[in-house]
Amino acid sequence: MDIFGATTLVRIRHPKRSPFMSLAPSEFRQQVRSGRLSGPTAGYCGDFAQANLAILPRQSADDFLRFCTLNPKACPLLAIGEPGDWRVPALGADLDVRNDVPAFYIYRHGERTEEVRSLNELWRDDLVVFAIGCSFSFEEMLKREGIALRHLEQERNVPMYRTSEANVRAGVFGGHRVVSMRPMKAADAIRAIQITSRFPSVHGAPVHLGDPSLIGIRDLSRPDFGDAVDIHSDELPVFWACGVTPQAAIESARLPFAIAHKPGHMLITDIPNTRLAIL
Amino acid sequence: MDIFGATTLVRIRHPKRSPFMSLAPSEFRQQVRSGRLSGPTAGYCGDFAQANLAILPRQSADDFLRFCTLNPKACPLLAIGEPGDWRVPALGADLDVRNDVPAFYIYRHGERTEEVRSLNELWRDDLVVFAIGCSFSFEEMLKREGIALRHLEQERNVPMYRTSEANVRAGVFGGHRVVSMRPMKAADAIRAIQITSRFPSVHGAPVHLGDPSLIGIRDLSRPDFGDAVDIHSDELPVFWACGVTPQAAIESARLPFAIAHKPGHMLITDIPNTRLAIL
Repeated sequence: MDIFGATTLVRIRHPKRSPFMSLAPSEFRQQVRSGRLSGPTAGYCGDFAQANLAILPRQSADDFLRFCTLNPKACPLLAIGEPGDWRVPALGADLDVRNDVPAFYIYRHGERTEEVRSLNELWRDDLVVFAIGCSFSFEEMLKREGIALRHLEQERNVPMYRTSEANVRAGVFGGHRVVSMRPMKAADAIRAIQITSRFPSVHGAPVHLGDPSLIGIRDLSRPDFGDAVDIHSDELPVFWACGVTPQAAIESARLPFAIAHKPGHMLITDIPNTRLAIL
Repeated sequence: MDIFGATTLVRIRHPKRSPFMSLAPSEFRQQVRSGRLSGPTAGYCGDFAQANLAILPRQSADDFLRFCTLNPKACPLLAIGEPGDWRVPALGADLDVRNDVPAFYIYRHGERTEEVRSLNELWRDDLVVFAIGCSFSFEEMLKREGIALRHLEQERNVPMYRTSEANVRAGVFGGHRVVSMRPMKAADAIRAIQITSRFPSVHGAPVHLGDPSLIGIRDLSRPDFGDAVDIHSDELPVFWACGVTPQAAIESARLPFAIAHKPGHMLITDIPNTRLAIL
């Protein structure tokens, strides 16, 4: 089993009729903190960046930082906390990472042992928070330009695949790159490359397009994580480095203790997606 | 027959041992003007933009300008001359367009009637010079990043194809978009999209990649202009709008009188390729 439970990702449901739709990120986090909101975060606070989380003991943090730095397409860092600090002011002044995420997964020696809604009882003075950019940000930018995203049209999770492309190893962290796939017409793929190139902190430009076998993917209809989506005959599969990559690296490292968000249940930050554009 | 003679494009030979290799553009133009240089210009003055030329009577110039403006991918304008003026200071202070191009084709009523090395005898007070960006500029930028260009490796002209994509019509000018094709691995194609996006005045980003039949190309091994090139199994064909498009539009318009450069025999300008970057 995938220790990060990505095979059991919840269905994305856009909260079209939710009373929480118009909340600011700090208000949304307050709702989560008080226990009034506990589901997946897709579709909430669409103008603001959501973050993948990896929370590791300091002993592993240096290697993990090096891993992220050496694999920036898959592991673009939005912020790093101070050791022991559950505040990450760069992501939100009032943020309490222990309680502002709808659900966490706890891993011990490479096995997922618990799912919790608060880290109050588990927090340690040696834990370091890593916040990693999420494709929700660039998907917002694609949607604004009218580029259709099949997994959203089909109300599925984006399909993700393990590839044959080895990550650059750093200490115990290695493994292979995971990619997400979005089918597009060629003109949309070209425009999507332009748009996402402006957002390196949320995976940036695609890493591949066209023939999936060239990066070790045998069957697009059988993703390793998420759900398969339809691909039309006039479309190309377009592949982006995926935030599941660091999770797979942590999985293979079999750390004694590690924490991540429950997939789809992200940390909503105060960072406007537009501010992530490098130009 | 194609009135612009693109089917008879000369072979590209890079002038590796030419004594003219290190010339500045103004020196190169002086060599052309004095008759010491008359061949194709590929490979000369590689840091500077070369231009496609269309020289039309004022009566057709307004429509042609509108055509270029409405079809900017295929017809990116580097400069327009004043009616009757053979100087184009925007492209070079000392430039004499009548004599600084190695060879011209003359068209009368849609037929190519002459090839000349000077326009001194043919110049008219109503002629308007249009200088249109050339892919040589973005190819320089691709080469600098180590992206191999198959037609250069194979010492051929780039393959060009008529597509099923109609140009936006302006007066007598219409026709269909012509594209050039360069085969690339996916990662190079993505990088090439990023690089060429910075250079809209020399055709900018590709207009298509992947399945050629989607833009009306039946057989990549049979280009309409230029030469076929090898495509490897791990490569995608990547298609850019091509400077032959305005020539095809002029061809179909059957103007009583028009002038163009002989394909491959370009006007070398004083504009550094790097200055064409929009960012």
